[in-house]
Amino acid sequence: MSIYPAKQHLAATAAQLGADAGVILVFGGSTLVHPDSDTEYEFHQDSNFFYLSGVNEPGFAAAYDVASRTAILFARHVSADEAVWIGEQPSLRELCATYGFDAAHPVAEISAVISGLRPAAVYTLPESAERVAALGSGSWVLPEAALLRAAVHEARVFKDDAEIAIMRRANQISSAAHEALMRSARAGDAEAALRGRFVGLTLARGAQYEAYGSIVAGGRSAAVLHYTRNGGALADGDVVLVDAGATCGGYASDITRTWPVGARFGAEARAIYGVVLDMQRAVLAACAPGRLWEDMHALACAEAARGLLRLGLLRGAADSIAANHVVGFFMPHGIGHLIGIDTHDVGGYPPGTPRIDAPGLRYLRARREMRARMAFTVEPGLYFVDAVLAQARATPAVAQHIDFDVVARYRGVGGVRIEDNIVITESGHENLTTCPKEIEAIEALRAEAYASEATTVA
Amino acid sequence: MSIYPAKQHLAATAAQLGADAGVILVFGGSTLVHPDSDTEYEFHQDSNFFYLSGVNEPGFAAAYDVASRTAILFARHVSADEAVWIGEQPSLRELCATYGFDAAHPVAEISAVISGLRPAAVYTLPESAERVAALGSGSWVLPEAALLRAAVHEARVFKDDAEIAIMRRANQISSAAHEALMRSARAGDAEAALRGRFVGLTLARGAQYEAYGSIVAGGRSAAVLHYTRNGGALADGDVVLVDAGATCGGYASDITRTWPVGARFGAEARAIYGVVLDMQRAVLAACAPGRLWEDMHALACAEAARGLLRLGLLRGAADSIAANHVVGFFMPHGIGHLIGIDTHDVGGYPPGTPRIDAPGLRYLRARREMRARMAFTVEPGLYFVDAVLAQARATPAVAQHIDFDVVARYRGVGGVRIEDNIVITESGHENLTTCPKEIEAIEALRAEAYASEATTVA
Ligand SMILES: [Mn+2]
Ligand SMILES: [Mn+2]
Repeated sequence: MSIYPAKQHLAATAAQLGADAGVILVFGGSTLVHPDSDTEYEFHQDSNFFYLSGVNEPGFAAAYDVASRTAILFARHVSADEAVWIGEQPSLRELCATYGFDAAHPVAEISAVISGLRPAAVYTLPESAERVAALGSGSWVLPEAALLRAAVHEARVFKDDAEIAIMRRANQISSAAHEALMRSARAGDAEAALRGRFVGLTLARGAQYEAYGSIVAGGRSAAVLHYTRNGGALADGDVVLVDAGATCGGYASDITRTWPVGARFGAEARAIYGVVLDMQRAVLAACAPGRLWEDMHALACAEAARGLLRLGLLRGAADSIAANHVVGFFMPHGIGHLIGIDTHDVGGYPPGTPRIDAPGLRYLRARREMRARMAFTVEPGLYFVDAVLAQARATPAVAQHIDFDVVARYRGVGGVRIEDNIVITESGHENLTTCPKEIEAIEALRAEAYASEATTVA
Repeated sequence: MSIYPAKQHLAATAAQLGADAGVILVFGGSTLVHPDSDTEYEFHQDSNFFYLSGVNEPGFAAAYDVASRTAILFARHVSADEAVWIGEQPSLRELCATYGFDAAHPVAEISAVISGLRPAAVYTLPESAERVAALGSGSWVLPEAALLRAAVHEARVFKDDAEIAIMRRANQISSAAHEALMRSARAGDAEAALRGRFVGLTLARGAQYEAYGSIVAGGRSAAVLHYTRNGGALADGDVVLVDAGATCGGYASDITRTWPVGARFGAEARAIYGVVLDMQRAVLAACAPGRLWEDMHALACAEAARGLLRLGLLRGAADSIAANHVVGFFMPHGIGHLIGIDTHDVGGYPPGTPRIDAPGLRYLRARREMRARMAFTVEPGLYFVDAVLAQARATPAVAQHIDFDVVARYRGVGGVRIEDNIVITESGHENLTTCPKEIEAIEALRAEAYASEATTVA
């Protein structure tokens, strides 16, 4: 495995900081323990620290001397007694080689090592600020922690080749698991069983953990946008929405597929699915450097309006539908978000960029110009949420455009979402997500689930 | 599903408290978010709160009026906006029925409801103390939080029928997954793949999450007691130690099996495995009300000494071996621990009970008399930990009893542990763990793994 480019990330962050001297010093996460118990939370490294170090262990710190371009790792202390329990630890020399750092010291030496560099300033993150101040004991110049935070966030927005390779792999592993579900799940299976199978398959192929709480929502449950209870069972005639992604090598994937529980889509589900697929195609075709992310949202809404007009759920003039944000009542979330170490990655709203207060748009998680090496999810969806439709009905400017009788016929679809992960390239985008989404391909997989004999999810 | 006996647990806790008036008031856990991110930790309810409420959702509180025996639930507030994302919430009336409480109110009403009871005292836990003090705003009498903590801990030690039924189910689900691994894993499989399969199978059958970080340790890695890295692959000729358990319905299971990567145990592994099995048999036969848990540790050590003498790893007189804690250098952990909502459950050391400072024994997690309805793990093991054996060699009184040349021949075994979960009954114990541990049964499963054609863990 190649070395994670932590040192380049330290340099990129220093460049964003605009500093030509001083030291960056940040602490990684520690082990968290449940209250009144010795049960540990599964360790997930702090995202900014992972970006700057590549270290996925608790108790580490990292520093970067800007002028000399020296990356220094500080390793946790493991006592001989502890080593019996967790194993022999690598030497400082081995740590340098593993993480591509120039030097390594025990964490106990941070204060001495940093002071020895006689730094003009010590930049740190809000989460590390207190400890850094204590270590400097008044003798270090400590700029506002928000400065380094903004610099790391902006550096993280642009993925280098190593990061893109990791994200490609995370998507492949998650995509394969989505495909395995489509190929095997049957009516009667518990939603929790599908989630279990997804988690098992991705962990078995080297994933670290779920990037977020998986959603397996059959039928009407897909109208609950953040349905993570997964407490039902798949019913024939329904579609099931599966929003699940694994974190691999420190990077999240975030993929949604929606497919029939039976071997084929019913008429209403097929129609809605087709509109959502058109929405995604329209956005993907437009993703390229120079375009604005909020325009992608508008593009999806315009495509949705066309489709819903054609199906008779909407009526009236397209410009009035757009002006009244009517589609926002069917897609009450944003078209997508930056993705990287975090599922909802940092940098979506550069300082000073306000949110747009309109249905759907107020939940848009990014507002900026696309540039090469940015990674986004593209996740159009259409949902029949009773509470949201009631709001629409109570808003005359919106209600005039909706045929609620036709909508009632589609209510059983619950919700449809199709979510891929892309990286912006010089000329357009690369789609990292590899599992099928065309209706024919999905129905072929679903037929396999019912053709084979002894498939059981559990 | 029957109602979780939260109200009985509140009553049992009040009884332990010895109070005949006053109110118990405790808060449940909240959603935890990763630093500088909106990624939520998977929600795990605080153990004491789960015991007293049965609620596995963030943002709740529970109260109990001791004199009137009234159980009151306080439900989190969910706004209409939030309901679009997480779904419609049950009514207060529905919550009472679901959790078996006498009354339910929104959390915003805690202060008014409790004050309305005019409580003589408001008992709470250390984790809730600050919030309770703020709600009482000086007008409530607040006894030391350690009082309620000790009462809940002692109540939790004794499992009622409902809890035992849940623990039985958790053990069945985890046992079935262990058996599935034995039936399918092959040389070359990644340790992480076995963990993934374990997690997937247990989640699919309704488990909530891993009760603790699973250990899948092939060969020498089993000599690392807390090996959760699972970074290797299974090698033919090795044994693999799998310590994995799921939490189901709020209760942990904690099971270890050790088995050959090939179809049969090698000679050294078979010999060590036989000794560990004898250790477990000796302890299980002795588990009954009235016996001391620390004596179970001594019993296991005595059985180990007999076996290791027979195999030639030890030499000399049994009483000197016992007096010098020689077996502690081969089993540097305790014989087991209480288990329940927490894997290492509360109540192992009643107030005033000191630890015993001797090899092996200093890590013993419980020291008390066994009584009916207590649940324990019984987990004898023998390991060849280089660092610990070096300590033994450097301690003449210990080294005189060890034939290090013979030990060297067994070093490749790494480590063997066999861990079951039991509940003490009036006459002895019930073993909740159902997966095979006899050598013949294990080898039969391992033969299946190699007989079948297309088995792959991933
Ligand atoms: Mn997403
Ligand atoms: Mn245990």
